[in-house]
Amino acid sequence: MTLRAIGSASATIANLGPGFDVLGLCLEGPRDRVTVELTDDGRVEIVQIEGDGGKLPLDAAQNCAGVAARWVIERFAEPGTGARIWLEKGLPLGSGLGSSSASSVAAAVATAALVDPNIPRGVLLEACREGERLAAGSPHADNVAPALFGGLVAVLPGEGEAVDILPLAVPRDLVLAVAKPAYDVRTADARAALPKTMPIHDAVHNMAMIAGLVTGFATNDMGLVARCLGDRMSTPYRKALVPGFDAVVAAAHGAGAVGAGLAGSGPTIFAITDDRETARDVAEAMVDAFLGAGFESQAFVSAVGLEGATAELERG
Amino acid sequence: MTLRAIGSASATIANLGPGFDVLGLCLEGPRDRVTVELTDDGRVEIVQIEGDGGKLPLDAAQNCAGVAARWVIERFAEPGTGARIWLEKGLPLGSGLGSSSASSVAAAVATAALVDPNIPRGVLLEACREGERLAAGSPHADNVAPALFGGLVAVLPGEGEAVDILPLAVPRDLVLAVAKPAYDVRTADARAALPKTMPIHDAVHNMAMIAGLVTGFATNDMGLVARCLGDRMSTPYRKALVPGFDAVVAAAHGAGAVGAGLAGSGPTIFAITDDRETARDVAEAMVDAFLGAGFESQAFVSAVGLEGATAELERG
Repeated sequence: MTLRAIGSASATIANLGPGFDVLGLCLEGPRDRVTVELTDDGRVEIVQIEGDGGKLPLDAAQNCAGVAARWVIERFAEPGTGARIWLEKGLPLGSGLGSSSASSVAAAVATAALVDPNIPRGVLLEACREGERLAAGSPHADNVAPALFGGLVAVLPGEGEAVDILPLAVPRDLVLAVAKPAYDVRTADARAALPKTMPIHDAVHNMAMIAGLVTGFATNDMGLVARCLGDRMSTPYRKALVPGFDAVVAAAHGAGAVGAGLAGSGPTIFAITDDRETARDVAEAMVDAFLGAGFESQAFVSAVGLEGATAELERG
Repeated sequence: MTLRAIGSASATIANLGPGFDVLGLCLEGPRDRVTVELTDDGRVEIVQIEGDGGKLPLDAAQNCAGVAARWVIERFAEPGTGARIWLEKGLPLGSGLGSSSASSVAAAVATAALVDPNIPRGVLLEACREGERLAAGSPHADNVAPALFGGLVAVLPGEGEAVDILPLAVPRDLVLAVAKPAYDVRTADARAALPKTMPIHDAVHNMAMIAGLVTGFATNDMGLVARCLGDRMSTPYRKALVPGFDAVVAAAHGAGAVGAGLAGSGPTIFAITDDRETARDVAEAMVDAFLGAGFESQAFVSAVGLEGATAELERG
């Protein structure tokens, strides 16, 4: 009889609307599942990865799930503890939906469930951010935090690299339509597309949009949300890396979406609706618009993932 | 028997914390009072100004109260209508507390009370913004909007120069301590101190602060408000024009304030408290700190002005 933990964490939309590096939203799915078994040989190893098309490294030190699991073990487990890890990718890679974050978070909560179920999620966040540092070059929290905590969150700066995660109110009946075109955008390229400075009046624009967006979500005012999804910080520079962007956003609006924008660093485009049927129509319209721009795409609809990451124990 | 209207509008704190050009807060006082009588000679004239030390122009075309009154008359009164205007300044000039805005707003609501009491406040906002354009060089709304509508507002950008005013929730029991040192800062100098661009990471900082501040006010979470008053957009550049700034902010914190910052373009410094007694202590500590820096100052405490501008009719 071996005790295993199965962690599950889902896709997330970072950089939501005007909220570059600040606002992140958790979806219900798709989800990555990470199964962890503890060992006493002090080694952390990735046994198997499914669903990645062979693209992810099995070397645990080079895999964000391995890094997050090791972080938890090094700080909270008995000396000599190791782990065997199975990773099932439900998220597409390079989509802008927080694929690496979902793996890091699922690995962290699964490992913690075996090592010490009382580790606060605020502490596990640091394990997940180390995974993110490996995958993206810096410990951005705007995918890992919503994947871990669920719902809509704001990442507030703390001392040095520390962050505080602020849960924000979001209507329960939002349904998102999400379309991923059949091309990738490397996070590094998306970062390189950004200027280092921006005009103050554009920053003022995004600040006003954030005030309105946060208020619109908290008061379930979809008209206000619709007016406050505009972004002048990253989208104007990154949409050049996402052929079809303007047509797909227009198609989403045309099909009844409250608003639409780039998910994370793209190329996936999200649209917000307040109704599952509309979300299906919007998803279809987005796929058609990508096709019109010359690209196949895959679309899905998802409610907001209010619960965040989960871990279950299994004996087998 | 002559019918007069007396408009009253109060001090406001624009650029609240991280909310440069976005967040404005209305105080209960001090207030400007503007008395208006309509005439049939087509002229708008300022009869008298009290409390300005002789500094404000009596030429109605050069006085923001005259400009706001004329805007209302030109659009809504019978042809040939004029106005006689008496202005009582309760606000200090050049303080950063929206002195010209209070005059514009008081004049607009008084004139409207005589011309057509049904003019929506959203329309009167445009009259007030014309006053602001005269006084400050551009039709910024972050003083006139809170003075007109009351409470805490966000200024959302619209088409061209248009703006939408979003009322935001704010706890009723906030009390502000406000200290104005005995020196002036010209709005033009304060604008000139700002760079035209800013690092993206500083803009991200302010966006996160706004998400937290709006949420903190809406949920009456003063701990969150305290963490989210930081500004990297204007304060770092403008505080050089406000000798004593750091000491006064530190003194406000030391005396129990939730937080403190520059009011508008300064030199007045505001502090937020949730209790009138604390606010009095904070005001005293701020005056002492200005004195320690070599400057006399005047301080007052005020609740949030939830009502905004008022107009009363009087026969005499």
